[in-house]
Amino acid sequence: MKKVRVRAPATLSNLGPGFDVLGLALDGPYDAVEAEVRDQPGLSLAAAGPFGDRIPLDPAQNVAAYAASRVVGDRGLHLRIEKQIPPGSGLGSSAASSVAAAVAAARAYGLPVTPELLLPIVRDAEALAAGSAHLDNVAPALLGGFVGVVGQDPPEVRRLTFPEGWWLAVVLPAHPVATKEARAILPDQIPRSDAVANLRALTGLLDAAARADLEAFARHLVDRVAYPYRRPLWPFLPTAEAAALGAGALAWSISGSGPAMFGPTDDPGRARAITQAVVEALASAGFGATAYVSRVGTGALDDR
Amino acid sequence: MKKVRVRAPATLSNLGPGFDVLGLALDGPYDAVEAEVRDQPGLSLAAAGPFGDRIPLDPAQNVAAYAASRVVGDRGLHLRIEKQIPPGSGLGSSAASSVAAAVAAARAYGLPVTPELLLPIVRDAEALAAGSAHLDNVAPALLGGFVGVVGQDPPEVRRLTFPEGWWLAVVLPAHPVATKEARAILPDQIPRSDAVANLRALTGLLDAAARADLEAFARHLVDRVAYPYRRPLWPFLPTAEAAALGAGALAWSISGSGPAMFGPTDDPGRARAITQAVVEALASAGFGATAYVSRVGTGALDDR
Repeated sequence: MKKVRVRAPATLSNLGPGFDVLGLALDGPYDAVEAEVRDQPGLSLAAAGPFGDRIPLDPAQNVAAYAASRVVGDRGLHLRIEKQIPPGSGLGSSAASSVAAAVAAARAYGLPVTPELLLPIVRDAEALAAGSAHLDNVAPALLGGFVGVVGQDPPEVRRLTFPEGWWLAVVLPAHPVATKEARAILPDQIPRSDAVANLRALTGLLDAAARADLEAFARHLVDRVAYPYRRPLWPFLPTAEAAALGAGALAWSISGSGPAMFGPTDDPGRARAITQAVVEALASAGFGATAYVSRVGTGALDDR
Repeated sequence: MKKVRVRAPATLSNLGPGFDVLGLALDGPYDAVEAEVRDQPGLSLAAAGPFGDRIPLDPAQNVAAYAASRVVGDRGLHLRIEKQIPPGSGLGSSAASSVAAAVAAARAYGLPVTPELLLPIVRDAEALAAGSAHLDNVAPALLGGFVGVVGQDPPEVRRLTFPEGWWLAVVLPAHPVATKEARAILPDQIPRSDAVANLRALTGLLDAAARADLEAFARHLVDRVAYPYRRPLWPFLPTAEAAALGAGALAWSISGSGPAMFGPTDDPGRARAITQAVVEALASAGFGATAYVSRVGTGALDDR
């Protein structure tokens, strides 16, 4: 029976001023999904990897299973999800599983694998996981790179320029944040001046990435649409930020709705020093943490 | 006595989703300011041109005089303002006069002429004219091209990519809109979903301009931060929009707080057809109008 394995990366999302708009694929960690064609109709699930015990194995409850069945319908399929990205991390854990599952399912049956076909499916899977359909994790997990979600329905996503030589220092505190709760905390109305501040910063951020101007990119890595309301969810942030800036980070920001945090740099040694300083500071404050040092990565469509 | 003449162009501002952020220099009409060194301290003013009778000649009331005196202090200067851009048009009329005056005054006295020195001055002049300090007219009037205002204080402005081969069809109805009133109509709070819609559209618009994708640029030339509240100020818009789209425009949008409207196209013949169709439709609806067909233009710093 035909069996394929596809990896989809962790992703930074809500990147700076790009709330629900900007996402970036890391070059790890990854979730991997093995899809195997079965004679008997319907879908079965198994989980593996360090976080395999954190996801539901009932296909009706599992977003990767949802994505795969949207792709193959009633055809027989067994999915083995290798979970390397911690759930509730702010690093697009559910998005990576959905994307890997959708691509693996399509490839197992030789079905077309295009962004146009898959994005609406993984968008809807994300809506089940997060309580709202946002594409800023699934799009970079699928396409790789730095991605702008410029349309939601139908999905319209654009690869944006991101300097090859930049690195991301990423630290994930052991302090889960529930995406649905983080969304519920946001007010329906926000000050117009905050909206305009984000429009300004977004323009500055995209321009800085296109010019590979790290100093300007860091200065515009700010948000006033969601950040001010979610700050109470991130009690570790002031400690982490001080340590990161002290170790040479030019900015320190939240990914998704947290708890993952990151800072951009143009030097892998500095990226390691930043993550180390943040992990140590968090340990002193009583927070365990995991660190990743990453470049911008490729997406599931590139994994063949 | 030394005498210099500097032109500064009309500008589109609040461009699509870029409220208070994106501006674009047209290649006409222009305001021109002639600055002449005088022995006697202080500033005197004269006005000329088709709209010379629409601006105050008391230096204490005139934004161009304000900008020039911030540049030269108490030194003697006579300014002759040649007003080609109608005030209250949404085409950056006061910005063009301030910018031309600041550059002309500096050149007349051989003072340094840099964006860093001049932007804070013309920003403050604009605040006097408009009731709030926005830079999306003065920055393109000074620098030319397509400009993003990514910082307000200190001013930080960036030249953004705009396709050389694109044209702007511009129509100005005879229906003045007071900038201060158009600003007062805006609510302090807006729906968060509207702010996010603008972040999406802004990302799409900048990406489309960088790729010279006119169809995508037109599709993202939308605004939900200011447009919905100002629509009552623009009774001529539905008529004009229908005529523009009927004549082949892919989008039809307001510049500044109006009444000027514009549509982008990649064909000068189509730009003329669009302006003609809009002017005729407005005439049938009882609105006089003036039309301009323009490429993206240069700024006052380039006028030597």
